[in-house]
Amino acid sequence: MTAPRTIGIGILGLGTVGQGVWKHLTEKQTDLESRLGVKLDLRRVAVRDLKKKRAVKVPSTKTTRDPLEVVDDPKVHVVCELIGGTTIARELTLRALRAGKVVVSANKALLCQHGPEIFDAVRRHGGQFLFEASVAGGIPIIKAIREGLVANRFELIVGILNGTCNHILTRMGEDSLSFADALKEAQQLGYAETDPTLDIDGIDAFHKASILAWLAHGKWAPRARTLVEGIRNIGPADIDFARRFGFALKHLAVIRRDFKAGWMTVGVYPALVPNRDILARVSGVNNGITLRGDVVGATTLTGRGAGGDATASAVIGDIVDAIAALTGAANPGLSAESLAAREQLGRQVRMANLDEIVSPFYLRLSLLDKAGVSEGIYRIFSKHKVSIARVIQYEHPNQGRGTVTLSTYPVNEAKMSKVLTELRRLKTVLEEPVVLRIFSPES
Amino acid sequence: MTAPRTIGIGILGLGTVGQGVWKHLTEKQTDLESRLGVKLDLRRVAVRDLKKKRAVKVPSTKTTRDPLEVVDDPKVHVVCELIGGTTIARELTLRALRAGKVVVSANKALLCQHGPEIFDAVRRHGGQFLFEASVAGGIPIIKAIREGLVANRFELIVGILNGTCNHILTRMGEDSLSFADALKEAQQLGYAETDPTLDIDGIDAFHKASILAWLAHGKWAPRARTLVEGIRNIGPADIDFARRFGFALKHLAVIRRDFKAGWMTVGVYPALVPNRDILARVSGVNNGITLRGDVVGATTLTGRGAGGDATASAVIGDIVDAIAALTGAANPGLSAESLAAREQLGRQVRMANLDEIVSPFYLRLSLLDKAGVSEGIYRIFSKHKVSIARVIQYEHPNQGRGTVTLSTYPVNEAKMSKVLTELRRLKTVLEEPVVLRIFSPES
Repeated sequence: MTAPRTIGIGILGLGTVGQGVWKHLTEKQTDLESRLGVKLDLRRVAVRDLKKKRAVKVPSTKTTRDPLEVVDDPKVHVVCELIGGTTIARELTLRALRAGKVVVSANKALLCQHGPEIFDAVRRHGGQFLFEASVAGGIPIIKAIREGLVANRFELIVGILNGTCNHILTRMGEDSLSFADALKEAQQLGYAETDPTLDIDGIDAFHKASILAWLAHGKWAPRARTLVEGIRNIGPADIDFARRFGFALKHLAVIRRDFKAGWMTVGVYPALVPNRDILARVSGVNNGITLRGDVVGATTLTGRGAGGDATASAVIGDIVDAIAALTGAANPGLSAESLAAREQLGRQVRMANLDEIVSPFYLRLSLLDKAGVSEGIYRIFSKHKVSIARVIQYEHPNQGRGTVTLSTYPVNEAKMSKVLTELRRLKTVLEEPVVLRIFSPES
Repeated sequence: MTAPRTIGIGILGLGTVGQGVWKHLTEKQTDLESRLGVKLDLRRVAVRDLKKKRAVKVPSTKTTRDPLEVVDDPKVHVVCELIGGTTIARELTLRALRAGKVVVSANKALLCQHGPEIFDAVRRHGGQFLFEASVAGGIPIIKAIREGLVANRFELIVGILNGTCNHILTRMGEDSLSFADALKEAQQLGYAETDPTLDIDGIDAFHKASILAWLAHGKWAPRARTLVEGIRNIGPADIDFARRFGFALKHLAVIRRDFKAGWMTVGVYPALVPNRDILARVSGVNNGITLRGDVVGATTLTGRGAGGDATASAVIGDIVDAIAALTGAANPGLSAESLAAREQLGRQVRMANLDEIVSPFYLRLSLLDKAGVSEGIYRIFSKHKVSIARVIQYEHPNQGRGTVTLSTYPVNEAKMSKVLTELRRLKTVLEEPVVLRIFSPES
């Protein structure tokens, strides 16, 4: 292999996503280099305004106003196109691809409108065009369809692909806000643009849906044959109907394929989703996609669908794939370098001690039915400063025993172990206590 | 590249998963060959009993009782180890790896107990060991951690990794079955073994959890430092407490990492999960895993965690990755061959006509408040044979108008379009009707 051992990376655009990519790439550079067995050279970033204040500091020697200084630099192997739009972005993308480079893109509109031209350039010049970041932010949905679930034909792909719509509908459905108020809030929170048309009229979701449809079925859905509807018309009567009959109102992208009849449909519209469906539980700015494959059955992926960091996660995933391809390591996660790096990583970890593992607990105690029993129990909790959150006590008439179920505030395993040892010693505790942890993502 | 243009595949074991792999590989062979630009040769399958009746027919010229005829065949490049256990499976795996072959494995116990030895053989002899099928069936969780989310460090990985436990707990929680009855049912349905110990005592989930912990953190969790609990002790009082306070009872695998303090914990135990958490909604034999990464935030993957077909989907995904690596195509989904294959695929698809797209509909109509108005509306539905499922009618006092919200049974878009055209023509319909589709995965 004569692959370059130093990989040059260039970034076009330093908005939210560009800044996220710069930040996390520099933070993880050492780790990625040891996994990939290459040096990474973050060579150059093209920006519109050199003077603009940004949360991320890029050395001024690395910034330029001329995107061609990024694209044409022979030492830049991977170009991240994060400027958006379909004019300059298209020119720069094609220029990089025609030089045989890798382009990593978050640009759904570009791919959707110029997909055939882009992939033609890939084929002719041996580069790559990677676009995990274009659909559903950090959720690795492109990779799932393209690689992990490659054994499948997908008769149904259905997803919540626009976080702005989902945030608005969640607020309307769960908190009874009006559409206008929910939109205003989304704008204040930065989830919706000042001109929210692309999001709330379904155009953004249409772009993403057609990318998924093309990936799964090889065909670009013509806009004219696609139902594209937004959420402007949703009102309280609709929310009410949905709630009464066990539905959630969601803005869906639905791609169906009938393999026998030979057709596919792509539709983007607000819909009533049965509450039992996992997509009904995808709330706020999250995205979620269910793939129904003929081999795997239904698989659902959910997570943050937008935002600089989540999208940067996808961009970096693509960069790593691209580098693996450039250097001939097909499984970046399991190359010899990566195995060595993982081993090295493992040496820095120890198993936690019991006083470092914290969660709320649930206990079920079987108790002698006698005066003063409860007091004896609670004295032990209080002695170890374990606070009790909830209690349900049952009597079992004529059996001379009762049941107490209770939950605690977060406490470490070592302390809970001491509490349990003392509880077991009590003559009034009749059986081995049942102990469950309460899962708390926050603790 | 001197990569082989015919890739030989051998299978060890023809149980549920082995049969699934054979079935779907043969069905998808042409498609996979054109995507990958190679010929696939399903050379040989080692079975314990040549005479056994199976749902899948493998030509007798391809079956053998001697697994070495598979492993040692120089024309077999990819060995799928699907026999399970840790003795013969270990010998065969190491033998194949020492010959520099690719081993694709669904064997969690083997990987968990002999991981270092296996990867040492990979490194020394240049083969590959791929194990997507070992955790969470068809859900591409290994690939997500290893590749898609490679930019992330994972402070939390939490999952429902054992479908048997989840089925039992779902039935106890939602349908108030006793543990004994739920277990019995799981056994009758084939979800639990006659000896269910590995599943319900948490050993199976522990194996899977330690694979995920190793993948994310590079360290094999020692059994002695891991909390491993099953679900035998769960009773109605626990279910009741959970229900009252907004929790679901789930058997979880929890891997936490504190990057500052330098520790990780691995625990496998029944826990109370808040209903708002998406894992609380993963029911029946499904699996679900939430990854919380420092870049991407929380991402959740759910789907069927076991079964021949779902697991076969993962095995075939790994086979395709392995072939891409062998032939130097790093992105199987976007190689020139694959792009051409996708284009070819696209030529076989047309966009559906409106009479082929079917779903139930929801309508909101604003109506003049006058006798006979409803009849006029319903006459149109009845004329087009569209059945109405649910109606809510409101009056708006003193406004001279009312609102009708209703849902229909499934109907095609063309027919609904005719209904809407006629409704719009009525003088009693005061505003443009609001039309929503009802998402129905079944239709």
